[in-house]
Amino acid sequence: MLVAPGQGDSDWLYACGFDVEQALFFDFGAEQVLVVSELEFERAQAEARVGQVVDRRDAGWVESRDTVAAWCAVASHVLRGRGVDSVRISPRLPVGYFQALEAADVQMEVDGELFRERRRRKSREEASFIHAAQRAAEAACAEIIAHLAVSEIRSGLLWLDDRPLTSQRLMARAEAALAEIGYTGSHMIVAGSPENALPHYRGEGQLRANAPIIIDIFPRGMTSGYRGDLTRTVVVGEASDQVRRMWDASLEAFEVAIGLLKAGVNGRDVHLAACRVLVERGFGTYTKGYEGDLEGPRMSHGLGHGVGLDVHEGPSLRDLDYPLVAGDVVTVEPGLYRKGMGGVRVEDTGIITANGFQNFTTLPKSLDPKAYL
Amino acid sequence: MLVAPGQGDSDWLYACGFDVEQALFFDFGAEQVLVVSELEFERAQAEARVGQVVDRRDAGWVESRDTVAAWCAVASHVLRGRGVDSVRISPRLPVGYFQALEAADVQMEVDGELFRERRRRKSREEASFIHAAQRAAEAACAEIIAHLAVSEIRSGLLWLDDRPLTSQRLMARAEAALAEIGYTGSHMIVAGSPENALPHYRGEGQLRANAPIIIDIFPRGMTSGYRGDLTRTVVVGEASDQVRRMWDASLEAFEVAIGLLKAGVNGRDVHLAACRVLVERGFGTYTKGYEGDLEGPRMSHGLGHGVGLDVHEGPSLRDLDYPLVAGDVVTVEPGLYRKGMGGVRVEDTGIITANGFQNFTTLPKSLDPKAYL
Repeated sequence: MLVAPGQGDSDWLYACGFDVEQALFFDFGAEQVLVVSELEFERAQAEARVGQVVDRRDAGWVESRDTVAAWCAVASHVLRGRGVDSVRISPRLPVGYFQALEAADVQMEVDGELFRERRRRKSREEASFIHAAQRAAEAACAEIIAHLAVSEIRSGLLWLDDRPLTSQRLMARAEAALAEIGYTGSHMIVAGSPENALPHYRGEGQLRANAPIIIDIFPRGMTSGYRGDLTRTVVVGEASDQVRRMWDASLEAFEVAIGLLKAGVNGRDVHLAACRVLVERGFGTYTKGYEGDLEGPRMSHGLGHGVGLDVHEGPSLRDLDYPLVAGDVVTVEPGLYRKGMGGVRVEDTGIITANGFQNFTTLPKSLDPKAYL
Repeated sequence: MLVAPGQGDSDWLYACGFDVEQALFFDFGAEQVLVVSELEFERAQAEARVGQVVDRRDAGWVESRDTVAAWCAVASHVLRGRGVDSVRISPRLPVGYFQALEAADVQMEVDGELFRERRRRKSREEASFIHAAQRAAEAACAEIIAHLAVSEIRSGLLWLDDRPLTSQRLMARAEAALAEIGYTGSHMIVAGSPENALPHYRGEGQLRANAPIIIDIFPRGMTSGYRGDLTRTVVVGEASDQVRRMWDASLEAFEVAIGLLKAGVNGRDVHLAACRVLVERGFGTYTKGYEGDLEGPRMSHGLGHGVGLDVHEGPSLRDLDYPLVAGDVVTVEPGLYRKGMGGVRVEDTGIITANGFQNFTTLPKSLDPKAYL
């Protein structure tokens, strides 16, 4: 049983493909049942991927200010009507619902694996959705880099059309490009140096020349709900020797990692192989045994992660035991960062196959914005 | 104590103003403490509205595939270090965390009121964020209507620039307009007849002339996180007499409701007053005692709801006991819908004051797209 506690929960979307604020989903094995409000009933009939849609008024709904208790009473009513004693629930169920379900005499077992394995192995359709989202990310990234490529440098800062070229302007252009093709990417990163030494710094203000700009885009399909994930780093003007070495090492770590990926390989081993390249090139990481140079640029995050309805989901490519399976969609995203200076990162997304890795990404990889035109 | 279980939880944003996937927040009264990963530490120091930011490695973090258990062990460590026995938690805490916290010997009390009242009474700053989001909604709505106003009618369908004018094209234009000014609105509604008889139908495909098109936009500030909420209905071509009567009745219900709003008034009474207008004008509602004509167009939803970090939050303006307070930001959105025909709805958002209602909305209200130019 799943409870929709607001919009956008990925297990919920996976289960019934119907975005709604409040509703109940039951998988009785032979049949899936969705209980919705009278307001959503017809829309659910048209859009939801379930065998049966029930109006909550036909399932014992009593209007109340305490909507949580009201929905839980409906859940109890439905389960009793089917003679079901106990249900498996997601660890993501809000505890307020859990306690109200207990109060309504529903027996529950929290099952952390409820959707984990199913969601990991992407179907052909899911893979095509992620592939399409990755193409959208490429289009948005190319849009940003096209603006950077024609920007002017004045006193070390970037200008375009006689206005300061800021992270916000570029994000708005990318968001607009995504919207035109049915995607949204509101948490994207367009981060200049030196602040981009923090990998999740989103970026703001006028961008600097002669220093890396990290562009990390993970759009969501407005219809499919699936994500892509892509990062490029570019320098407008001249990249320093150190930045070039950081970039080359990241790219080599990327290539080594891609070459190892296939079903049966352990995510940890791929991560460690990438760490080894970075250390051999004179840099460091946060991974035990691969610390390298503690004073210079280091990789402060894992090599990659799963992508699907969530932009971060299983499996992990980091210092954790995680055997990969065919159908895993993962990012590979080595990067190097140094506080006070800045960072570089490169990231593609693709799918693990029995024999290797099908990269969904075709955008060039270069520090030079003109290489993308 | 709050646990960040993914991005975008509104209580979390309200508490510490820092969007992050995994972290812990403690309010010890005298001090707020945020525990984050090493990856987010410096960003949290720069961005979070808390007294103290702690690196999880300084709070007993042990890397594990079971990140839920790992975070809960950190919570236990922090609480024990402060000599705290018991914490209040949100009913939105995922039950997986609840059980792992129990296993880590953390005593918890679920408190449904934890943020409810604080979040209801909007501060001056919050009100200004919502006001700004409402202006963004107006800009996006005007963008859509401007396209409709210059569209062509061929065989009863709308065309623009020799291409079918679809809901998706208009949503993309609006999304782009929002992105340029720092907002995102990915779940907006641009729904033609007859499908818009379902109030939450989002809209797809080529739009029809001579029938209502409902435009409902609730953008989110990319920086502030706060929402606006706005609906207009327009007809390209000729509106039927019935549609005009539906629109006029909705507008009258709207005006009557607005005139009643002030602190101390009960949301139910405002809803019922609007229902009364609709019934007096010959239409119906889903509210007991105000059913009116069961065969004709009816209002199938409540009159309004609170708006803030969530697009739907307290208080409710529907058939529920809900006294309004100064600082409540609410929508007023009467509408009438008839299956097989379509619907109309009009919606503004504003703030409840001691003496009345300050409407954040200035966009005209008309079925005629040209009235908005």
